This record gives sequence, structure tokens and C-alpha cells, in this order.
Amino acid sequence: MASSWRTVRKLEKLQKPVPSDIEIAQSIEPLSIKEIGDAIGLKDDEIDLYGPSKAKVHLSVLERLKTRDDGNYIVVGGITPTPLGEGKSTTTVGLSQSLGAHLGKKVFTCVRQPSQGPTFGIKGGAAGGGYSQVIPMEEFNLHLTGDIHAIGAANNLLAAAIDTRMFHEATQSDEALFRRLCPPNKDGSRRFAPVMLRRLEKLGIHKNDPNELTTEERSKFVRLDIDPDTITFRRVVDVNDRFLRKITIGQGETEKGHERVTGFDITVASEIMAVLALSTSLRDMRERLGRMVVGTSKGGEAITADDLGIGGALTVLMKDAIMPNLMQTLEGTPVFVHAGPFANIAHGNSSVVADMLALKLVGNDGYVLTEAGFGADIGLEKFVNIKCRASGLVPNCAVIVATIRALKMHGGGPQVSAGTPLPHEYTQENLQLVENGMCNLRRHIANTRAFGIPVVVALNKFQYDTDAEIQLVIKRCKEAGAFDAVLADHWAQGGQGAIELGQAVIRACQAAKTPLRFSYALDDSLIEKVKAIAKNVYKAKDVEFSEDAKRKIERYQSQGFGNLPVCVAKTQYSFSADASLKGAPENFILPIKDVRLSAGAGFIYPLCGEMQTIPGLPTRPAYYEIDLDPETGKIVGLS
Amino acid sequence: MASSWRTVRKLEKLQKPVPSDIEIAQSIEPLSIKEIGDAIGLKDDEIDLYGPSKAKVHLSVLERLKTRDDGNYIVVGGITPTPLGEGKSTTTVGLSQSLGAHLGKKVFTCVRQPSQGPTFGIKGGAAGGGYSQVIPMEEFNLHLTGDIHAIGAANNLLAAAIDTRMFHEATQSDEALFRRLCPPNKDGSRRFAPVMLRRLEKLGIHKNDPNELTTEERSKFVRLDIDPDTITFRRVVDVNDRFLRKITIGQGETEKGHERVTGFDITVASEIMAVLALSTSLRDMRERLGRMVVGTSKGGEAITADDLGIGGALTVLMKDAIMPNLMQTLEGTPVFVHAGPFANIAHGNSSVVADMLALKLVGNDGYVLTEAGFGADIGLEKFVNIKCRASGLVPNCAVIVATIRALKMHGGGPQVSAGTPLPHEYTQENLQLVENGMCNLRRHIANTRAFGIPVVVALNKFQYDTDAEIQLVIKRCKEAGAFDAVLADHWAQGGQGAIELGQAVIRACQAAKTPLRFSYALDDSLIEKVKAIAKNVYKAKDVEFSEDAKRKIERYQSQGFGNLPVCVAKTQYSFSADASLKGAPENFILPIKDVRLSAGAGFIYPLCGEMQTIPGLPTRPAYYEIDLDPETGKIVGLS
Repeated sequence: MASSWRTVRKLEKLQKPVPSDIEIAQSIEPLSIKEIGDAIGLKDDEIDLYGPSKAKVHLSVLERLKTRDDGNYIVVGGITPTPLGEGKSTTTVGLSQSLGAHLGKKVFTCVRQPSQGPTFGIKGGAAGGGYSQVIPMEEFNLHLTGDIHAIGAANNLLAAAIDTRMFHEATQSDEALFRRLCPPNKDGSRRFAPVMLRRLEKLGIHKNDPNELTTEERSKFVRLDIDPDTITFRRVVDVNDRFLRKITIGQGETEKGHERVTGFDITVASEIMAVLALSTSLRDMRERLGRMVVGTSKGGEAITADDLGIGGALTVLMKDAIMPNLMQTLEGTPVFVHAGPFANIAHGNSSVVADMLALKLVGNDGYVLTEAGFGADIGLEKFVNIKCRASGLVPNCAVIVATIRALKMHGGGPQVSAGTPLPHEYTQENLQLVENGMCNLRRHIANTRAFGIPVVVALNKFQYDTDAEIQLVIKRCKEAGAFDAVLADHWAQGGQGAIELGQAVIRACQAAKTPLRFSYALDDSLIEKVKAIAKNVYKAKDVEFSEDAKRKIERYQSQGFGNLPVCVAKTQYSFSADASLKGAPENFILPIKDVRLSAGAGFIYPLCGEMQTIPGLPTRPAYYEIDLDPETGKIVGLS
Repeated sequence: MASSWRTVRKLEKLQKPVPSDIEIAQSIEPLSIKEIGDAIGLKDDEIDLYGPSKAKVHLSVLERLKTRDDGNYIVVGGITPTPLGEGKSTTTVGLSQSLGAHLGKKVFTCVRQPSQGPTFGIKGGAAGGGYSQVIPMEEFNLHLTGDIHAIGAANNLLAAAIDTRMFHEATQSDEALFRRLCPPNKDGSRRFAPVMLRRLEKLGIHKNDPNELTTEERSKFVRLDIDPDTITFRRVVDVNDRFLRKITIGQGETEKGHERVTGFDITVASEIMAVLALSTSLRDMRERLGRMVVGTSKGGEAITADDLGIGGALTVLMKDAIMPNLMQTLEGTPVFVHAGPFANIAHGNSSVVADMLALKLVGNDGYVLTEAGFGADIGLEKFVNIKCRASGLVPNCAVIVATIRALKMHGGGPQVSAGTPLPHEYTQENLQLVENGMCNLRRHIANTRAFGIPVVVALNKFQYDTDAEIQLVIKRCKEAGAFDAVLADHWAQGGQGAIELGQAVIRACQAAKTPLRFSYALDDSLIEKVKAIAKNVYKAKDVEFSEDAKRKIERYQSQGFGNLPVCVAKTQYSFSADASLKGAPENFILPIKDVRLSAGAGFIYPLCGEMQTIPGLPTRPAYYEIDLDPETGKIVGLS
């Protein structure tokens, strides 16, 4: 145990049956986060406490530790899941607890921050589960340190700026716009705000004095001339508010008839979330925010946040959000909770800066676990082709989380859905279904190895699993080329239940790292890039682009965005775009209905159909049970 | 100096001309907020740090210090202002600095948290100004500790709940609703969520077992039957987004035609902000949030947040927000920044809990300054009749902030407006205009004395003020019954410039406190209450209620809300409802166009016309200049 963090502590007196998540979480007093910060080697001015159990860590740590070697980098992906989820977060946390509290390793867990919307809707929390959780789970699932609120504030400021600018352009002459955008100083002189120089440069106008602009240049400068039909930037709210999916704005008298149809997404679907997740520094974030494209001018020019003069203000709103949030697991290992982009319209991975910081903090004999959302065909593919490309980091090993339940579903078992009891196929031994379902897991293993990453399969134990089923899976995984395959029981046992998994991961990391093999080169055409993923990762026969999609691909290429990676927005419930095609479908055609651009995040996202970007509330939302004890302030009913 | 806080420090090397607010604020390194917390006697578990210069203070301090005497309580109000503002916040801060750093007193400043919207729009920051500021001003003006974001999250969760509930009621039978609201446990039994018992009690159904409800009772229980035309609860966003003033929601296919016209307010206009400001404890906030009325059922019943089952969840979202935020002035005195309700549709005062905590922390020889928004006819009247009624606190003294500029405007000077140079009447001596304008200030003095509060006039010094003008004002104020009237130059000199003001306040507080004289009794009728304010405070001849207003008053009285105080939504630019009527208008009729209810905050608000509840962005918003240095992270361009 010599080299682990000094704050680790093994769980004691585990209860059976396993109590509810909130009961377990509230039964363990978190260590002071300052103590965790000290243990991982942070200096006092590198950590901002947010109450006793959360803190933000300054990016300056990267500079201080720049000569230190990175630790081992492990990405956690998953089998194509059932709608109940297969325990990827729980495994990420449990594996950390095992490495830190039981195997004497310096370990850091990097996970995504969940949206607050589902906490009050159906889903409940997302801090892991059972005896493998990030605590305090209430803080994890609620405001945390306000990063998602900061994203909402920045997103909605930009959205307001778009509509207001169109309004002002529609109601003012070039001259009036110019006079207001560059108001005279007391001595009558005028100046450009620094951000305006970015637009001037883009327009090819190399002048610093507003008075020197010709009439034509003034007009080009002041008129963004956004085509309302091309606006892709929407407003956001971190609430499951289905009535905002499609709305008409600008119906007040003061807006003089400038109505427009638009809608809200949930905040975590904002492009700014993806920017946060992919930025490598404050400076990088500033540039990414400024180059976000909100729509196209009537002349075909991509209009950016910096054209609206707002890139700096957005960065100011996001200046604290870029610092990763330090929390802890039940067994006292450190956790970064940072960024939580959607895994369909965005890349579904936690932040680059959290991984970078964690790799330095653990040092060369340490371990950093980072979770990739959705099944490995999506989260892990995007981890490689988008996130690692942005960060330059290379993983040592991938953990693929699987369950007997998901394997049975892929093997032909009946539908699994939330709120209804599991059919008997899932509660009784059925080796044939497991055998059949291996086709899905086998493909994830092969895909991951094709990226150049060794795979350890973590079979997440559930109560109905039989020994024969378990042994079958382990055998088949090894035959399929997994470095190892291990049963893990961290949900019921905490880190103790994932010791064997931890040992397998340690062994896998001892092998020499090979460079990543990306699925495509950035200078391939957008169509080639989509086809490369579809054919090599999903095993589609071909891709069919709608006319609309083709037109947009043309436009984005002509606007200079053809060299971005692609981020396919697809269901996580199948390798194909049809959620009902379980197992390992082949010979299907992947339909691309539409294509959109996240120029700041730095990817093009083709859509395989309509993606729901804001959930709704059910008839009896989770909020019915949520309250607090007014004496103690303790939260009840959060799950 | 023996009895002041040990953290106070006098400003040194004041520059002339006075630099910009952000230059001053960034030139002074804030003390560690932990050090301030220690100095004011907080124990480690009573303070949650939010980074190095902000903290939240636990309400448990009230219990620990319950036997300690309260300090002196001073409310700061103002003359009817010009559109440029007369420096009420700056005076509140400067006076604190004088009492703490120059007069050896334990002092606490309680101010409102500003909305982030205007920071990026026109107005700029609100942390005081010149050498009298709350620092760090960037933190003050941006997210602070996330209270406003928490309000937004709670407000919008409730708003989503309203529309979704109407949708589910419209598309489901009584039986289906019941089955979903009280789903069966594994053994087939059903239970009510605790919050449902509140609705049952309201309905007069005294049963704890869902199975015992009759068909009719089930129907009453599951159907809120909200009349969409009566919904007063709107969504909020903390951005100047004028295009959300009036919108149509529910136009997505998934909402099956259930469209509705509604709109967004800026977050600080949320009733939840007023609830936060008026709550005296966590328990009180829970009850207030639960009894917020969102609309009326088709049968005339007031429908509350608890009817929707959401009062507990709202409280959970607000559990940290109820803790006041500790910051500091430039001269090291402590500040609570907490709550910032609108001063027209709400009561415009910072929080009750911050004042309560501060009064205990300073102890009986200390001083607490609390700011009341708008002119004294509004902010101070509401301070007395709404805030003090909720808290039970009684002020020792009121400071009324006045300027020669505002007096000249009331005396007949030409219009003053932002962005245009001051007419010469304001830049040259003009005793006649000052003399004429005293009518306005005289009335504020008389009104305040009528509440039973001694008045100290703070004449906030501006560069053009002449000695003769200043002496005239001081003489006239004393003749008008002010306890004292003093010139204050804290903007240019910090606390040093407000020493005489501080001394006057200390003397005023030495007099025995008299009980508050409220403007009306709670059991007066709503119409009588409005008339009492209009006639006695505004000096209106009478009040004219629209038919709509009368109908709503009837409804609110019949629903049991007739005993609430009233909160008149009126312009701050005149004693009347006509902003152009300067001076001390009389014999006017106050028009009440509409009446609304804030049942959780605990007041009825009559509207003297349309109140703008979400501002817009100008052609060149403040965000054009706002950016940060990517190396240092330092913000530039915030004003």
C-alpha cells in the first residue's frame, strides 16, 4: 500500500442486501476535500474549495508538473446496453476503489457531470451505485460547482445576442449601426473593441481606425446578415421541459413582428459543453468559443460568436467552469467530475483537462480511469477519434463493461425495459442466449483492438448470473482477443469486489503502448470519414446521405470545415441506427438524415435520424419523493 | 479602533482622478475570506468557502448566537433617482468602510446580488463604485456562488411541471393518472408520497392509504385542472433576452397541439427570489416554496407548488442558496451579498436571513447596513411593511442618499439620461433648482419619520457640486426634520470620505428605538392597504382600480389571500405612476391596472401599468469589451 494516496480507506461492514444508493452515500462521512487535495499533492493556491466536499483545481498544476511523466490511461467503455444501463459508471468508480484502496496504486477517476434535469425526472442520479459511488451523491447530482449553470448562462447570452442583432440590423441603417457599434469617445475619435478586429481580419479589412472604413467596408462590418433559416444555435435549460422543444419567440409588441420558430435543448446538449470538454487550456477555450458558428449569412458566410463580439464574454462566464471539480469515492480516492457532453450530438466524454491533470497528479506509476459514454461503438470511437485527437493522449488499456443481461438481450432475449419486471430469460440460467449474445461483445473487443488498445472485459455481476454463464463469457472473451476478462462485484462489495479486475488492468498497462490507429485521417472528405466509421466500426454495408445532408456537407466543406473529425449522432442501443437491431447486425445501410456543425467543439455531426435533445417529465416525476429535513438539511428521496 | 474587526485596513494612496471601478477593484488584493470569517467569529463548520474570496455562512450561527443582542440596524434608502442612479450602493459600502476602518465599529454590510443580465447589457456592475466597493467585483457581478442559477433551476423545474401536468391530465383518464401517481409496490400496495398528503389535507381528504380513496376523491386528487388562462408562473433566464418576452410553447409534434402563449422573465424577477429574500429559516423557505400559487383551477381553487408535488424538490435546489454569501469591502469589512428581488413586482430588499445573521455577528455595539432598492417611497416602504413584518426586526435609523443632481432634476432641471452629456444646469451652480427640488427629499424624510425611523441624509458628493448648494441642502434637510444631513465623499475617498456620515449614524442610533409604524394593518382589505400606501406615502388623491384589478382582488380575497401585505409595482422615477412627474406631485390618481399574487413570498402586487420583467440588449452591449487575459485569467472590460 506504500504508494497509494494517504486518504484511501477500505469500506467496512458492508450490508446485505445492499441498501439504496443514497443510504450508502449518506452513511459514509466524506473526508474533507482539502485533505484529498493535500494527499494528491495540490498546493493551497491550486485548489478552490466549494464547501467541505467539493473543490476546483487550477490548470496551473499542468505547468508546475509539466516535466512529470503521465500515469497509465485507461478508458472505460461498454457493451451495447439495455435501457437499464450496464453499470459503466459504477465499474469506473469500483475499479478506482480497488486500485487505490486495495492494490496500493495512485488512482484518479474522471467522470462526466450529469444533467440536473433527469435527477428530477425519471433517471435519478449518476454517481455510480451501491458500494461504488462518488460522494456526496447529492452534490454530484445537483448544482455541483455550477459548471452547467455557467454553460447555460453563456449559451443563452449568445442566443439572445443572435436574435437581438438580427433585430437591430433589421431596424437600423448601416450608418446608425456603425455609430452605435463604434461610439465616439469624448474627443470625437472612434475605436474598435478588440474583438471587432477578429471580424475585420476575417473580412480581409486590415484597418485599425473605424474612420478609415469605406462605406462598403462599414456595411460589411456592421451587417452580419444572418439568414434566420440557417440558425443552428438554440437556447438551453437544465430541466426536462418538453414544452420548449419547439417554440415561437419574439411575439412581444416590442419585437415588432420579428418572430422566429426555434427551441430549447437541455443544457448539457449545448455546444459550449462540448467546447468545455475538448479545450486543452483557457486560451484554447477562448478560441473555440469565439469560433462557434451560429448560422450562415445570406451570402453564405459562416457567422461566429466572435462576429457577434461575444467570444470574450462567453469565456469570462466559463472561466471557473474550465477548472475540474475534485470529489472522492466511497473509499477515499480522488475523482474529477468535469463536463458531460451528449454522446450522440456530441462526443460523450468527460473533459480533456481533467484527464491531463489527473495523469500528471498520479505520475508514471499511477492510473487514471476515464469513462466514455454509451456503448463502445460510440463513446469509445469518439474517445479515440475526437477526444484523443484533441488531447494528444494515448490510452494504455480499455475496459469494456458487459453484463450477462445485455448479452442475453443481444442473443435474442425478450425486450428489457425500465419499470417492468425482467422476463424469466434474464432471471434463470440460459447459456444459449449468452452464447448468441457474445457476437455483440466480440465486435466491441475487435473494434477496440483495431484502435490499437488492449481490452479488459469487466463482467459486472448481477444477482441472477450463474457460474456457468460467467465462465462462458470469460472464456469467449479471451478467445475473442481480450487481454483478460474478469467478473467484478464492486456494486455489492466496493473496491474489494474489483480486485481481480484491478489486477488485470495493471497487467494490461504493463505492455508497451502502441500508437492509436484512428478510423480516418482528418484530410479525408467528410463523406469518407462517415463511411469509415460506418463500415469499420458499425459494420454497415454502406451509408446513405439525404439530399439535405449532402447539401450541408457541401456547404461546410466550402466554408472550410471539411477537415474536422465527425461525430455520428446515433442510437446507443444498436450498432446500426435502428435501436431494435440487437446483436451484431451487418449489411445494413446507415442513413444520414442531416448534418450539423460544432465548429467550436471542432466536429461535424451527421444525424442518423431525429435526436431528442430535451427530455420530458413523466406523470410522476422523481421530484415527488425529493425533499429535505428542515432541521438537519439532509436530503431525502434522491435516487 | 479596539472594537472593530481585526481585518479592517484603511485605503492608502488614493488616486486622482479616481480610476475606473475595475482598476480600483483589481488593484487591491482581497483578504482571504477565511480570515474575514475568523475575524467575525465564525467557526470552521459554519462557513463554506467558495474559492479564496467568497463563502457561504450557515444559518446554524443564528442558533449558536440566539442569546446575543442584535446590533444597530440601519436601512439605506434614496431620493427619487435620476436614470443615472444616485449612489445608494456606493454609499452603503462607503459608510461601512467608514464605520469599520475609521470609526472602530464592528460593521456588516448587507446588499443585493445583481442579475448577471445587465452586466453584459448596458448597466455594468453593481458592487458600489470608486473607492467604495465590494470585492472581487468580478465575482460579485458574475455567478457569485450560484444562488441566482439555483433560483433559475427551481423556477424552471416548476414551470415545466405545470405544463407537463396539464398535458398528462389532458391525455390520461383519472384511473391512469392515479395508477401512475401512486404506483404499486412489489407487494401490490400503494402509498402516497409525503408531499401528496399536503394536497389531500387541502382537499379535506383525511386518508393515508391510496386504496381507500373513493372514485370521486381520486378524481379530485389527481386532477389539478389548471385553467391555462390563469397561469401566472413564467419561465426565467438570467440574460437580457427580449425575444423571450412573449412566446408560444408546446409546438413540437410530441406535445400534440397543446400550445400556450407565455414568456420568460429575468431570473431575479422570479417569485422564488422574493421567497429567498423573505424566508427566515430553511423550514420557512420550504413552506413558502410549497405554497407558491401558479394559477387557478377551473373551479376557482388556487393551485400551489405542493399540489404539483414539487415543493420539496424546489427546496432541495435552494438549500445552499439560503446561506448568505460572505464577501468584503475594499477596506476589509464583511459584506453579505444575498438575494436581489425586483423592487417593483417584488420588494427590492436583500435577504432577511443575511440581516439576522449580521445583527448577531456584530453584536449589540455593532452596526448592520442594509440597502433598500429604488427610491425610499418604494424600497423603504416595502422594507418596513413587507421585510420588517416578515423578520420582526426594527431599524434604528434610515440613511437617505441624495445628490444635488437629483435635487436639481426635481426642481425643474432638464431631463437627465444615460449616454448624453449633462445639461449645464447640472454642471454649474444653481441654488434655485436645488431649493425647488428639496420638495422631493423633504417628502422622503417625512415619510420615513412617519414609519418611526430617524433619518440621516447622506449627500453623495459629485464633482460639480458647489459649497453653497451643499450647505443649502444640509440646512433644508435639518429644517425638514432629518436627524442630521451630511456630505459624503466615499466614492473618491473610501471610508475616509464618509467619517462624518458614520458619526451622524452612530449618534442617530443612540436614541431609543421606537416601534415601527406600519402603513396599514394586515387585516385591512386589500383595497384599503393599497390606498393607505398611495395616500400616505405617495400622496395620491385616490386610487383607481381597473375592472380586471378589482376582479382579481375579489378572487384573491376569496381564496384566502386578503391578509397579505401589498407590494405596489410602480416606477421609481416619481412618487406617482408617471415617471415624468418629478418633485413632489400631489392630487394625482394612482391607476392600478392589474393585481397579482406571490403567495409564497407573501404579498399581493398591484401593478400601476406594464412592468418590463426582462430587459433587452442594445446594439453594442457591454459584452463587446469583456474578455480575459488567457495567461493570467484576469478579466478585462467589466464595468
